[in-house]
Amino acid sequence: MEKPLEQEVKELVADILEDYKGNRAIDQMEDFVDQPDKEVIINIVNKMLKILFPGYYRDKSYKVYNAASQLSLLIEDVMYYLNKEIAKVLRYSREYSGVGEDVRKEAAGDITKAFLKRIPSVREYLETDLEAAFDGDPAAASKDEIILCYPGMLAITVYRMAHELFLLSVPLIPRTMTEYAHSVTGIDIHPGAVIGKYFFIDHGTGIVVGETTIIGEHVKVYQGVTIGALSTSGGQKLKDKKRHPTIEDYVTIYSNASILGGETVIGRDSVIGGNAFITRSVEAGSRVSIRNKE
Amino acid sequence: MEKPLEQEVKELVADILEDYKGNRAIDQMEDFVDQPDKEVIINIVNKMLKILFPGYYRDKSYKVYNAASQLSLLIEDVMYYLNKEIAKVLRYSREYSGVGEDVRKEAAGDITKAFLKRIPSVREYLETDLEAAFDGDPAAASKDEIILCYPGMLAITVYRMAHELFLLSVPLIPRTMTEYAHSVTGIDIHPGAVIGKYFFIDHGTGIVVGETTIIGEHVKVYQGVTIGALSTSGGQKLKDKKRHPTIEDYVTIYSNASILGGETVIGRDSVIGGNAFITRSVEAGSRVSIRNKE
Amino acid sequence: MEKPLEQEVKELVADILEDYKGNRAIDQMEDFVDQPDKEVIINIVNKMLKILFPGYYRDKSYKVYNAASQLSLLIEDVMYYLNKEIAKVLRYSREYSGVGEDVRKEAAGDITKAFLKRIPSVREYLETDLEAAFDGDPAAASKDEIILCYPGMLAITVYRMAHELFLLSVPLIPRTMTEYAHSVTGIDIHPGAVIGKYFFIDHGTGIVVGETTIIGEHVKVYQGVTIGALSTSGGQKLKDKKRHPTIEDYVTIYSNASILGGETVIGRDSVIGGNAFITRSVEAGSRVSIRNKE
Amino acid sequence: MEKPLEQEVKELVADILEDYKGNRAIDQMEDFVDQPDKEVIINIVNKMLKILFPGYYRDKSYKVYNAASQLSLLIEDVMYYLNKEIAKVLRYSREYSGVGEDVRKEAAGDITKAFLKRIPSVREYLETDLEAAFDGDPAAASKDEIILCYPGMLAITVYRMAHELFLLSVPLIPRTMTEYAHSVTGIDIHPGAVIGKYFFIDHGTGIVVGETTIIGEHVKVYQGVTIGALSTSGGQKLKDKKRHPTIEDYVTIYSNASILGGETVIGRDSVIGGNAFITRSVEAGSRVSIRNKE
Amino acid sequence: MEKPLEQEVKELVADILEDYKGNRAIDQMEDFVDQPDKEVIINIVNKMLKILFPGYYRDKSYKVYNAASQLSLLIEDVMYYLNKEIAKVLRYSREYSGVGEDVRKEAAGDITKAFLKRIPSVREYLETDLEAAFDGDPAAASKDEIILCYPGMLAITVYRMAHELFLLSVPLIPRTMTEYAHSVTGIDIHPGAVIGKYFFIDHGTGIVVGETTIIGEHVKVYQGVTIGALSTSGGQKLKDKKRHPTIEDYVTIYSNASILGGETVIGRDSVIGGNAFITRSVEAGSRVSIRNKE
Amino acid sequence: MEKPLEQEVKELVADILEDYKGNRAIDQMEDFVDQPDKEVIINIVNKMLKILFPGYYRDKSYKVYNAASQLSLLIEDVMYYLNKEIAKVLRYSREYSGVGEDVRKEAAGDITKAFLKRIPSVREYLETDLEAAFDGDPAAASKDEIILCYPGMLAITVYRMAHELFLLSVPLIPRTMTEYAHSVTGIDIHPGAVIGKYFFIDHGTGIVVGETTIIGEHVKVYQGVTIGALSTSGGQKLKDKKRHPTIEDYVTIYSNASILGGETVIGRDSVIGGNAFITRSVEAGSRVSIRNKE
Repeated sequence: MEKPLEQEVKELVADILEDYKGNRAIDQMEDFVDQPDKEVIINIVNKMLKILFPGYYRDKSYKVYNAASQLSLLIEDVMYYLNKEIAKVLRYSREYSGVGEDVRKEAAGDITKAFLKRIPSVREYLETDLEAAFDGDPAAASKDEIILCYPGMLAITVYRMAHELFLLSVPLIPRTMTEYAHSVTGIDIHPGAVIGKYFFIDHGTGIVVGETTIIGEHVKVYQGVTIGALSTSGGQKLKDKKRHPTIEDYVTIYSNASILGGETVIGRDSVIGGNAFITRSVEAGSRVSIRNKE
Repeated sequence: MEKPLEQEVKELVADILEDYKGNRAIDQMEDFVDQPDKEVIINIVNKMLKILFPGYYRDKSYKVYNAASQLSLLIEDVMYYLNKEIAKVLRYSREYSGVGEDVRKEAAGDITKAFLKRIPSVREYLETDLEAAFDGDPAAASKDEIILCYPGMLAITVYRMAHELFLLSVPLIPRTMTEYAHSVTGIDIHPGAVIGKYFFIDHGTGIVVGETTIIGEHVKVYQGVTIGALSTSGGQKLKDKKRHPTIEDYVTIYSNASILGGETVIGRDSVIGGNAFITRSVEAGSRVSIRNKE
Repeated sequence: MEKPLEQEVKELVADILEDYKGNRAIDQMEDFVDQPDKEVIINIVNKMLKILFPGYYRDKSYKVYNAASQLSLLIEDVMYYLNKEIAKVLRYSREYSGVGEDVRKEAAGDITKAFLKRIPSVREYLETDLEAAFDGDPAAASKDEIILCYPGMLAITVYRMAHELFLLSVPLIPRTMTEYAHSVTGIDIHPGAVIGKYFFIDHGTGIVVGETTIIGEHVKVYQGVTIGALSTSGGQKLKDKKRHPTIEDYVTIYSNASILGGETVIGRDSVIGGNAFITRSVEAGSRVSIRNKE
Repeated sequence: MEKPLEQEVKELVADILEDYKGNRAIDQMEDFVDQPDKEVIINIVNKMLKILFPGYYRDKSYKVYNAASQLSLLIEDVMYYLNKEIAKVLRYSREYSGVGEDVRKEAAGDITKAFLKRIPSVREYLETDLEAAFDGDPAAASKDEIILCYPGMLAITVYRMAHELFLLSVPLIPRTMTEYAHSVTGIDIHPGAVIGKYFFIDHGTGIVVGETTIIGEHVKVYQGVTIGALSTSGGQKLKDKKRHPTIEDYVTIYSNASILGGETVIGRDSVIGGNAFITRSVEAGSRVSIRNKE
Repeated sequence: MEKPLEQEVKELVADILEDYKGNRAIDQMEDFVDQPDKEVIINIVNKMLKILFPGYYRDKSYKVYNAASQLSLLIEDVMYYLNKEIAKVLRYSREYSGVGEDVRKEAAGDITKAFLKRIPSVREYLETDLEAAFDGDPAAASKDEIILCYPGMLAITVYRMAHELFLLSVPLIPRTMTEYAHSVTGIDIHPGAVIGKYFFIDHGTGIVVGETTIIGEHVKVYQGVTIGALSTSGGQKLKDKKRHPTIEDYVTIYSNASILGGETVIGRDSVIGGNAFITRSVEAGSRVSIRNKE
Repeated sequence: MEKPLEQEVKELVADILEDYKGNRAIDQMEDFVDQPDKEVIINIVNKMLKILFPGYYRDKSYKVYNAASQLSLLIEDVMYYLNKEIAKVLRYSREYSGVGEDVRKEAAGDITKAFLKRIPSVREYLETDLEAAFDGDPAAASKDEIILCYPGMLAITVYRMAHELFLLSVPLIPRTMTEYAHSVTGIDIHPGAVIGKYFFIDHGTGIVVGETTIIGEHVKVYQGVTIGALSTSGGQKLKDKKRHPTIEDYVTIYSNASILGGETVIGRDSVIGGNAFITRSVEAGSRVSIRNKE
């Protein structure tokens, strides 16, 4: 009685294995043994959080007398793993796709060090973001609450580290980092976006900030806001063009507003109302809102 | 001093246990020892990802000389666990709720095999979705990046496998699968929806696609889009009616647009602007957008 | 050859350690050894789910003859860990920030017990929410499916337990709980909101319910809805003011609608259409919707 | 270059798979899907330790107010798993090898219950063993130290529970239990041996107590002692004969002594010196020792 | 049908719980919430191995540039956990049994520091033991092999650390450490024994070295050797007497030899043959062996 | 108050770090980043058990239709990891210590394949050992019990695989394997020993079989037996000499007997009694035993 079942299973398996031979695009990878490892990258993100906020994310199981030891191990650890992942993904970059493995490894080492050198600067920005969150949200009971609970703070932190890797032309890893934050927070900031100090995201779920967006200082963004491209029907041909808006200093964008287009500029001090849909530039100091049919 | 505390604890526990005897709806399960196991279903989803994209999700710890062995173990593994979960949930189906356990087990075996037979077809669809994503997003650096990072690709993949189980009238499991994808991506596609080839979701968070939706080929959908029911005040009475829209081929729906109603048809080649709210049909080739009060 | 690398690493680490001495706001924590532990709080939430829905979340590995034993262990376990976390966070509360550790520990014990006493009442509310979900969604095949799969049900459950801790003036923990639910479901309900029985959230991703919101009974809310503040430019000065709307009984709010402002009241039996943007009160029985430019 | 390696691997695998077809004795198992599970049995042993010594092995992570709940869960747990394992191994027993699975399951249930009923009696014996260890070893600082550190106490405890299962004619499991203790302590007591109260083993490594041994009360045994069979050249034909010695009350056997043979009786109050080799009976009150060539 | 089973289970559980009330010695622990934790102690032993042999047991997953950081974390870690365990067990010591918890905690801190100060001295001894092993065993291919594979080296190392705690009058923990080594290697060295430099144990299983043993330098011991007490019938009354032999420098003791008694002295340069049984002193330079009946 | 403690800790750590600079032998490893990994080797042993006894150690969680797939994955897995470990340890071999890493890697590949080719032969031997155990022990209820429970069978199996690696001149790994078996069973068989078919070890704890031992077919050995060197005072100079006995076919050696010396030959069909101590050859058919002073 078991035999026929066994036979059926074998046939099923054979059919699927046969299908793999079809040479589909979904089966063609650069080199499967050397993929970047998502788990490892997420791990790096979480260790970077401890490095960026040493007071908040320190391991709590025991009283550390010598915090410096713990932090330097953490830093070396990030260094080791990040180096390894970067060496893998450089294959995907135009600059390094043709070169030998040794050249890629050396380049990865230089990039890793350049990235770690940026930590103090990233921390300088994060300090302003924290201040903006505390000043901007009456519901925040303390700065501790913001660092520990606010998804916006997490998304900005991950974006800020991913952006540094993006600036160093690292492929795939920055996006993997921000997609991890996206998955946890619902906030999708492309690592290519340029975002000034004192950036505050409230609630956050459903926010999209596109690759070529430029955001000034003291900007506040609420849930559901899109800062995106106007039309993408040009597809891959649009790759290096500015396709997303520029948001100047001191702009507030309320929930579910959409601001689209590479030439759209929201002038400084403007307030964009909830659910607004904007595809043209707006002067400094504007108030934009939509009207309901009541 | 400890005694009184112990007493208090006992009383607290007793009160809660007492409350369980109240025969509340929230305590009445079909049969608690035989619930479908969410962990196991998520595990099946993750193994199915490896089967559907064997080049991308293969275990990376070592060089596999004989991929066929690994894949056939994976397939048998899915087969075993899926079979077991299906046998449990068939109790919830109208067709099998009254029958004996043996009949359900046999039916579960047949359904599992029918599902696995669909894998080549699912992969055929996924290949078109991948192509649509690469063509549609200038920010995509490579197809690898799409498979590894894009939440839209994940949500569509999980939907496509869940839809096959839905078509085989499996209760609960398809929804558990898509809710898992929903939780990770913020994209909620009901397994009952019918979606054609070359489907592309960009950014994704906040997307809802209802149970009786029909979507054609080459459709693009952005974050925050709802393809939903117009009103659900009829509740359970509406169960088998078409309550969600039909989207024809080559339609693009920008962010936060809502398209509602079972009789609403978006004609082919239409573009629905961001934040649009649509409850009536729209002719082929239409451009719909909202106007702000500026 | 290795020496110089070692030197570089040491310098990198030294630079970062130097930066920590800058006394930045992001490094100033109340007391780092005694932070509330996010992992533990999430664990408490998951154990509370088993206590609140004993029929659904029971451990399934074996047939339990004596459910009472299992539940009382679970309750004691929650008691122990919750007590410990509350004792830590009371430092953040105005009332207990100055007092000795012993006073805080005793207060924590009282609060924990008061919280556990509320379990039967929380279960009473959850029962009505379950009923509302089943009546409100034709796609729901059974009540089991709602408890096991619906993110809205999860978000409401976590909110209801966090709200009890909020009422007991526990800092940080309630928000950590609802942010956990937010991360999993995309639904962000502030623990301070007051929500009546028979509350139903469909799909859910992108929902925001602000701290001082008041919601009546039999209210339905769809994905992307914001019940928020009108403007937060007052920042921390607005802390104790009512900044969010009041939603009366039997109101339905469709997807992506925004209702803002502390004086905004949505009168009973009203229906707020998808994508509506409302900043003023609306009479009982109103129908509000937006119009597209087609 | 990789091809030939792949080829070699395939051939290697093929050769080994071919060898499996040789129908060797080492490949013939009763029924491989239904083997007793060593891990599970070891787990049962460790849970039984908590049940037998509730004061010593209780989980320590938190203050348990209601120990009864914890213990009853533990007991049910042992009951469930032991039942399952017994149902599997009854196939190996003469009595149940031919009967249907249902009969075996029912028998397993009865045996499990009979075993659990013996717990108070096993604890009565263990109490005497503990007392003997404390009185017998000047190096023992407290009874706590004996229960927590002494391998002899562990070996006796495991033997006492395994012996109860042996008396109930359970195949394989009792031996798996005592071999676990053997592996941890170096003390090999066959579950079939009959051992009286106040049994004390000091140091323990290298002790062997054979299947048909009978040991009285107040017996002390040191490391390296064998109480074994005289000759086993009869092999399986000797199966049900008494092949091991009888040790009467108040006997002490020093290190590395060997006492062999089914008709060998060590009379009460005797002292057997270290390294003695005994194959004939010894009267009550004897002193036996060996002489060196100095 | 299930009801009666449930009833039986309840009765079984009730019987066992009833038995716990019998106030047996096996249920009377000093204070069960505050037992020393075996798992933690084994963990300390394994971390101490890394500290004592930093070249051999270092974590290997990545290239550490800054070994000092890793080691100081390891040392602090041992410090933290050892301190905690010592504070618990001081209750068992005569000196601290009556004092308050604070006094015990302070004493524990002092003891922990005194122990850590002994690390360089312990390492000095271990270096001589390693040399003795390499010189003494022709089968040893390298010193690395001895540290990584030889159970004798492990047992001596654990003994040497446990002995330092014994000298500091720490109860229970030293024995728990050596019993761990005993369980892994079959070598049981009481932490109270005094053992000189260049100690070598070959093969090792079955070795016993009693509490009041004194061993000189350059002593070699083979498997199965007992250096034990002559008679322990005096029980607890013998507690503080010398009950075990003295072995002078350059003595070799072959396999399975037993040397017993507190007044027995094996003079320097003696060789004790395999299986010898010695209860009287032996002059310097002796050769002792046994004779067979052939 | 904390400061001084912090200071003390720093000093303690500094002292230990200082001691590491002393260039002790215990700190000088060939190359610490490239040590063989004990965990990995134990893992290989456990996977080899599944390959050698496919009917007994197969994963049991589900019904495998296609055992060949599972076994070939297992074989490839062993191949991968063993290859890697061998490549590391070849540094320790005379032949490969001076050569480049590439040469070692290639050699490791060849050795691994040669080892795997020996699997059928190893299985042929194991089958005879199993038969010998079943015939030799009346307490063995079934062959299943022997494979699943008998430490002797485990020790022989691990020896047989380690011996194949020893014959291929692999350093360190064979000994690590047999020391693992030694730790679990108390049976220490040097991988260099040559042991014929039908080898049976009963009980086993405390058995030592030296490096240059030669054992014929149908030999039985009991617990505590030493087959060792007569004197090792020559140390490393004796390295390549035959230092251990030869045991001819059909010899039985009872418990705690010691047979020593490279020229000692136990003639075929002899029986060596318990506790015998033999340093000279014994003719075929002898009976040797010791006499007590009674």
